[in-house]
Amino acid sequence: MTKKILIVGGVAGGASAAARLRRIDETAQIIMFERDQFISFANCGLPYHIGGEIEDRNALLVQTPESMHARFNIDIRIQSEVVDIDAQAKQVSVHRLDTGERYQESYDELILSPGAKPIMPPIPGIDLASVFSLRNIPDMDRIIHKLDIDAPRSAVVIGGGFIGIEMAEALVHRKVETTLIELSNQVMPPIDAEMAVPLHQEMRRNGTQLILGDALEAITESSDNELTLTLRSGRELKTDMLIMAIGVTPENQLAKTAGLALGQRGGIQVDKQMRTSVEHIWAVGDAIEVAHFVTGSHAQIPLAGPANRQGRIVADNIFGMASEYKDTLGTGICKVFNLAAASTGANEKQLLAEQKPFQKVYLHAADHAGYYPDARQIHLKLLFQPTDGRILGAQAVGEKGVDKRIDVLATAIRAGLTVFDLEEFELCYAPPFGSAKDIINQAGFVASNALRGSHDICQADALPQGDDVQVLDVRSASEISAHGSIEGAINIPLDQLRQNLQRLPKDKTWVTLCAVGLRGYVAQRMLVQHGYSVLNMTGGYTSYLMAQQVGR
Amino acid sequence: MTKKILIVGGVAGGASAAARLRRIDETAQIIMFERDQFISFANCGLPYHIGGEIEDRNALLVQTPESMHARFNIDIRIQSEVVDIDAQAKQVSVHRLDTGERYQESYDELILSPGAKPIMPPIPGIDLASVFSLRNIPDMDRIIHKLDIDAPRSAVVIGGGFIGIEMAEALVHRKVETTLIELSNQVMPPIDAEMAVPLHQEMRRNGTQLILGDALEAITESSDNELTLTLRSGRELKTDMLIMAIGVTPENQLAKTAGLALGQRGGIQVDKQMRTSVEHIWAVGDAIEVAHFVTGSHAQIPLAGPANRQGRIVADNIFGMASEYKDTLGTGICKVFNLAAASTGANEKQLLAEQKPFQKVYLHAADHAGYYPDARQIHLKLLFQPTDGRILGAQAVGEKGVDKRIDVLATAIRAGLTVFDLEEFELCYAPPFGSAKDIINQAGFVASNALRGSHDICQADALPQGDDVQVLDVRSASEISAHGSIEGAINIPLDQLRQNLQRLPKDKTWVTLCAVGLRGYVAQRMLVQHGYSVLNMTGGYTSYLMAQQVGR
Ligand SMILES: Cc1cc2nc3c(=O)[nH]c(=O)nc-3n(C[C@H](O)[C@H](O)[C@H](O)COP(=O)(O)OP(=O)(O)OC[C@H]3O[C@@H](n4cnc5c(N)ncnc54)[C@H](O)[C@@H]3O)c2cc1C
Ligand SMILES: Cc1cc2nc3c(=O)[nH]c(=O)nc-3n(C[C@H](O)[C@H](O)[C@H](O)COP(=O)(O)OP(=O)(O)OC[C@H]3O[C@@H](n4cnc5c(N)ncnc54)[C@H](O)[C@@H]3O)c2cc1C
Ligand SMILES: CC(C)(COP(=O)(O)OP(=O)(O)OC[C@H]1O[C@@H](n2cnc3c(N)ncnc32)[C@H](O)[C@@H]1OP(=O)(O)O)[C@@H](O)C(=O)NCCC(=O)NCCS
Ligand SMILES: CC(C)(COP(=O)(O)OP(=O)(O)OC[C@H]1O[C@@H](n2cnc3c(N)ncnc32)[C@H](O)[C@@H]1OP(=O)(O)O)[C@@H](O)C(=O)NCCC(=O)NCCS
Repeated sequence: MTKKILIVGGVAGGASAAARLRRIDETAQIIMFERDQFISFANCGLPYHIGGEIEDRNALLVQTPESMHARFNIDIRIQSEVVDIDAQAKQVSVHRLDTGERYQESYDELILSPGAKPIMPPIPGIDLASVFSLRNIPDMDRIIHKLDIDAPRSAVVIGGGFIGIEMAEALVHRKVETTLIELSNQVMPPIDAEMAVPLHQEMRRNGTQLILGDALEAITESSDNELTLTLRSGRELKTDMLIMAIGVTPENQLAKTAGLALGQRGGIQVDKQMRTSVEHIWAVGDAIEVAHFVTGSHAQIPLAGPANRQGRIVADNIFGMASEYKDTLGTGICKVFNLAAASTGANEKQLLAEQKPFQKVYLHAADHAGYYPDARQIHLKLLFQPTDGRILGAQAVGEKGVDKRIDVLATAIRAGLTVFDLEEFELCYAPPFGSAKDIINQAGFVASNALRGSHDICQADALPQGDDVQVLDVRSASEISAHGSIEGAINIPLDQLRQNLQRLPKDKTWVTLCAVGLRGYVAQRMLVQHGYSVLNMTGGYTSYLMAQQVGR
Repeated sequence: MTKKILIVGGVAGGASAAARLRRIDETAQIIMFERDQFISFANCGLPYHIGGEIEDRNALLVQTPESMHARFNIDIRIQSEVVDIDAQAKQVSVHRLDTGERYQESYDELILSPGAKPIMPPIPGIDLASVFSLRNIPDMDRIIHKLDIDAPRSAVVIGGGFIGIEMAEALVHRKVETTLIELSNQVMPPIDAEMAVPLHQEMRRNGTQLILGDALEAITESSDNELTLTLRSGRELKTDMLIMAIGVTPENQLAKTAGLALGQRGGIQVDKQMRTSVEHIWAVGDAIEVAHFVTGSHAQIPLAGPANRQGRIVADNIFGMASEYKDTLGTGICKVFNLAAASTGANEKQLLAEQKPFQKVYLHAADHAGYYPDARQIHLKLLFQPTDGRILGAQAVGEKGVDKRIDVLATAIRAGLTVFDLEEFELCYAPPFGSAKDIINQAGFVASNALRGSHDICQADALPQGDDVQVLDVRSASEISAHGSIEGAINIPLDQLRQNLQRLPKDKTWVTLCAVGLRGYVAQRMLVQHGYSVLNMTGGYTSYLMAQQVGR
C-alpha cells in the first residue's frame, strides 16, 4: 500500500526527509508544505550574502520547487501554512497564504520540520520598521534592501550568538558602523568565557564595538528614522538599524494543536527514531529537543547538520528501516573575522551546571610546524573526566586548523575515547599541515600526565592563594618585559633553573609559569624531583591573560 | 640507583627520548651520540629550505647541543659515531669523527634511534659529485650550494615518494627545469594509482616533467659536468644534477653488531614497549619495524610522528612506566604544489597483497559549502570491510581540507569504527568550513547504503562487460559535451528520467553514471524500484577518468 506522507517545512529537515523518502519509495505520495516562497535554501549562507562574500543570491537556493519536483516527484506547496493538526482524524489544515484558501489534507504519516524562530522580546519598539531579524530569504532581502536603499551609517546587533556575530561581520563588510550588545559576559555561548576573549579582541580589532553585560530594554524612533536604544544599564545608543539575534525558540505552535509533548524549553519531544508522543507524527530539526551525548540532558541544537541527518533518519523509520539519532555533541563553529571558534561536547559551564566532575587543560600551539611559514596559534581547551580520562568536550579558537582539531575531537568523543588515546593519535604530518606532535597529541600528553600524577596543574582562574605560594616565571627576561607577568612572581629562565635551585626555598608551594605551560611543566618536573612542591599553570601566561580578561 | 642511558642518534626519536627521560628522572646519566654535527633538526623542513619557503636555515635547528644541554642536562656528543655494541659487556664503541679517537662507553640501557638512510642503488655513476640525496643538514647544504654556485638549468629527481615530490617542487621553485622519474605507474606510493592521477596532472601543470614506469640504470658525466642518465627503457636524458629519492632503508649496521633480530626488510624488531631482542637494548624510529594496525603485518613507517612518540614511549618503559606503541596506521600527507595528498590505514594495494576482503567507494565533494566562495573538490577513497563495515583505510586528494578528513578518518580507524558510524559524525559546519553533510558523512551514507544493499555499485576500473550492459549517463547534455562520457552510453538527464522510463528496456544490466555518483545513485534508486537491474558507478565519471588515466 502506498503511503501518503505530509511534511511541514521545506528546508533543511523537511527537504532532506522528502528526498530520502523518495529514494526509499518511488510510489509514496509525498506532499511538502512550506509557508514561505522558498524551499531548500541555504539558511547558513544568509549573513554571507548580506556581507557580500556570496555574491549571487541564487546560489542560496539549493533547490527550487520546480527542480525538487523534477528530481524527486514531490508535491511541493509553497505559501501554504499548516495551521492545525487533527491527530485523531490524521489530517492537517492548510492555509494558502496567496489565495487565503483553507483546506484539509489527510496523512498516513506526518513529519514536522518547522524549525525555530528568532526570539523577539516584548519590549517597546520591537515592531519598528528598522528592527530586523534573520531567519529566511525574505528577512535577508529586507535587510539588504535597508542597506542598499537607506544606506544606514550605523547598526546595532543584539545578541552574540553565531548569527549575531555573523551579522556584525556582514555589516562591517558593508561599511556600517556596527555595535554588538550581549547580555552575558561573552559572545559565542557554546564556548566558555575565557575562550571568547580572543573573539572580543578580534571583533574590536575589526571595527565592531562590543558591549558586554548589557541588554536592550526599549527602542524609540525619532522623526528622521533614527532609533534610540535604551539599555538595562541606562545607557542610550542611537542607531540607524537594529538586528535582533538573541537566539531562537522552537516553532511549536502547530505541535501544540496536536497535543504533542514538549520539553521544558518548548522543543518537541521525540524518541531516537524521531517519533513524537502522538502516533504517526514525527518531528526533526530545530523544533525538537534531543539528548546531549555527553551530559545526557535535554538539548536544543539549532544546527543544520543534525536537521539534515534527522530528516534522513525519519524517512528511514517511516519505512521501517532501523535508524537512530544517537544524541548530539553540539559540534559547532563560527567564523569571527579572521578567527574561527569551534566546540564539541560539553563546555565547562554545562558541566558545572550539571555538577559533573571534570578536569581541564589549555594548550596554545601552532596549527603547523613553527618553522614553516604562516603558522598560527590555536587556543585549545580540553575537558575530561578526572576518573578515567574520558573526553567530555573541547573548544578551539584560532586562525587556522580549528575545525580540524574539533572534528577530530568530536570523533574521539563519539567513540568514547580518553585523553590517553589522544597521546597515540596518528595524524597527518608534513610541515604545511601539522606537527610531528600535533596539538591534539600534546593535549593528550598534558591531560594524561595530569591524571597520572606526573604533572600537577593549577588553573589560571584559580591561582592558589596564601603566603606560602610563590610564582616562578621561567620565561626569558625579554618575554616578561614584553608581555608582563603575575605580580610577585620571581623570574628564573628555564635554561638557568637547574644551576639556581639553591636560591629556591623548599617550604613554599611553587607555581611554575611560562608562556603556554610547556616550559613550566619542564621546570616543574625538575623541581618536583628536587623535593619541591610545585603546580604548573596550565596554559601558562596566555591562559592567565585570557582568564583575567573574561568579560572584557 | 641512577641509571646510565646511552642514546644513538640525536634527532626525532633520540632527542625525544632524551627529553622525556630527563623529565622522568633528574638523576639519570644520559649520553646522546650523534655522528653528525647537528641534533634535533627539522628533517621534514629540509626540502622547504631548499625551495626557499623556509628562509632562515636556523629555523630548522629545533634544538642545538647547547640549548638541549642547558634545558635537559643531556651529555650530547656530536660527531661521535657509535660503531659497535657489546651487548654482553653492556658497552658501545664510539668513534669521534673530529679527532679520530675511539673509546668505550658502558650502559645500563641503550636506545637506538639511528634512523633510515636513502637507498643508493649500485649503478654506474652513483658516486658522481652531481648526484645528491637528502637526509640531513649537510645534504641540504650541499644541494643548496650546488644550486647557488653552479646554477644548474635542469635537474632530475629519481623517485616519486614524498621526498622526491617535495624535492621536485623545491627545484621548480628554484626555477630549475625538473624531471621526476618513477619506476611504478604512480607517485606517492601510500595512495592508490588512480588517486595519484590528479597529482601527476598537478605536477605537470606546475612545470615538472614526469616520467612514469621507467628507472635509472646508469649515470655518466661529460667534461662540462653534464650528467647523462640512461633509463631502463633505453631512453637517455641530460641533466645538470640528480637527486636520488627512491626510498629509505633502516640504518641497521650497528644493530647487526649486537645481533639484534631484524625483520625481512631490515628493520629492527621490537615489542610494543620498544624492546629489541637483546636485553637492555631498545630501538625506535625509522630503524624499526612495527605492526600495521589494520593489516597486522610488518611495516616500516619512516615518519616523524611515530619516531617522536616512540621516543617518549621508550623513555617511559625504561623507567618502568607502562606505555605501549599501539601499532601504526601509517597516516601521512604530502603537499604537491597546490594539492595535498593524504592517507591513513591500508590502501587497496596492501589489501589486495594481503588478500583481505574489502569494498571501496569514491566521493568527490567540496571541502565546504559550494555556495560559499573558494570551495574546492576533495577526492576521497574509502576502504572498508564488506562484512561489518569496519573502516580499513582512506585516501584524499585536494586543495583544501584533505588533512582534516584524513585525520578524522584516522581517528575513526583507531577507534575501530565502521562506515555506519560515519553517517552520524557531527562535524563542524558553517559555510566557510564544511557542509551540513560533510564529505565524511556522505562517504558514510554511500558505503552504508552499499552494505545495506540499497545502493549496488560498480567500480570505474571494472565496468561490467557484456552485451546486456548499458550505461545510462544521467548528466545534462552540456556536461557531457564539455567532459565526454563512456562510449555507448545513452543520456537521459536525471530530472527527465522518471517520464522517460518507458524508453528503457528491462532486460539490460544498467550502469548509472553521473559526475560524481550522487545523481547516478538517485537514478538507480528510481530505476530499481521500477524493476530495473542497476549498478551505480561509484565516483561517477570523475572516478572513471581517474581509472582510465592510471599510469599517465
Ligand atoms: C542566519 C542563519 C545562519 C545559520 N548558520 C548556520 C551555520 O553556519 N551552521 C549550522 O549548522 N546551522 C546554521 N543555521 C541553522 C540552520 O539553518 C538550521 O538549524 C536548520 O535550517 C534547521 O532546519 P529545520 O528544517 O529544522 O528548519 P528550517 O530550515 O528553518 O525550516 C523550517 C521551515 O518550515 C517552515 N514552516 C514553519 N512552520 C510552518 C508551517 N506551520 N507550515 C508550513 N511551513 C512552516 C518555515 O517557513 C521554514 O522555512 C543558521 C540559521 C540561520 C537563520
Ligand atoms: C627530507 C625529509 C623530509 C621528511 N619529511 C617528513 C614529513 O613531512 N613528515 C614526516 O612525518 N616525516 C618526514 N620525514 C621523516 C622523518 O624525518 C623521520 O621519520 C624521523 O626523523 C625519524 O626519526 P629517527 O630518530 O628514527 O631518525 P633521524 O631523525 O634520521 O635521526 C637519526 C640520527 O641518528 C644518527 N645516527 C645514525 N647512526 C648513528 C650512529 N651509529 N652513531 C651516531 N649517530 C648515528 C644520524 O646521523 C641521524 O642524525 C622526512 C625525512 C626527510 C629526510
Ligand atoms: C537539497 C536537499 C533537499 C538535498 O537532500 P539530499 O538529497 O538528501 O542530500 P544530498 O544532495 O547531499 O544527497 C545525499 C544523498 O546522496 C547520496 N550520495 C552523496 N554523495 C554520493 C556519491 N558520491 N555517490 C553516490 N551517492 C551519493 C547519499 O548517500 C545520500 O543519499 P541517502 O540519504 O539515500 O543515503 C537538502 O539537503 C536541502 O534542502 N538542503 C538545503 C537546506 C539546508 O540544508 N539548509 C541548512 C544548511 S545551509
Ligand atoms: C625538540 C625535541 C627534543 C623536543 O622533545 P620534547 O621535549 O619531548 O617535545 P616538546 O617540546 O614538544 O614537548 C613535549 C612535552 O611537553 C609537554 N607539553 C606540551 N605542551 C604543553 C603545555 N602546553 N603545557 C604543559 N606541558 C606541555 C608534553 O606533555 C610533553 O611532555 P611529556 O613527554 O613529558 O609528556 C624533539 O621533539 C626533537 O628533537 N624534535 C626535532 C626533530 C624532529 O622531530 N624531526 C622530525 C620532525 S621535522
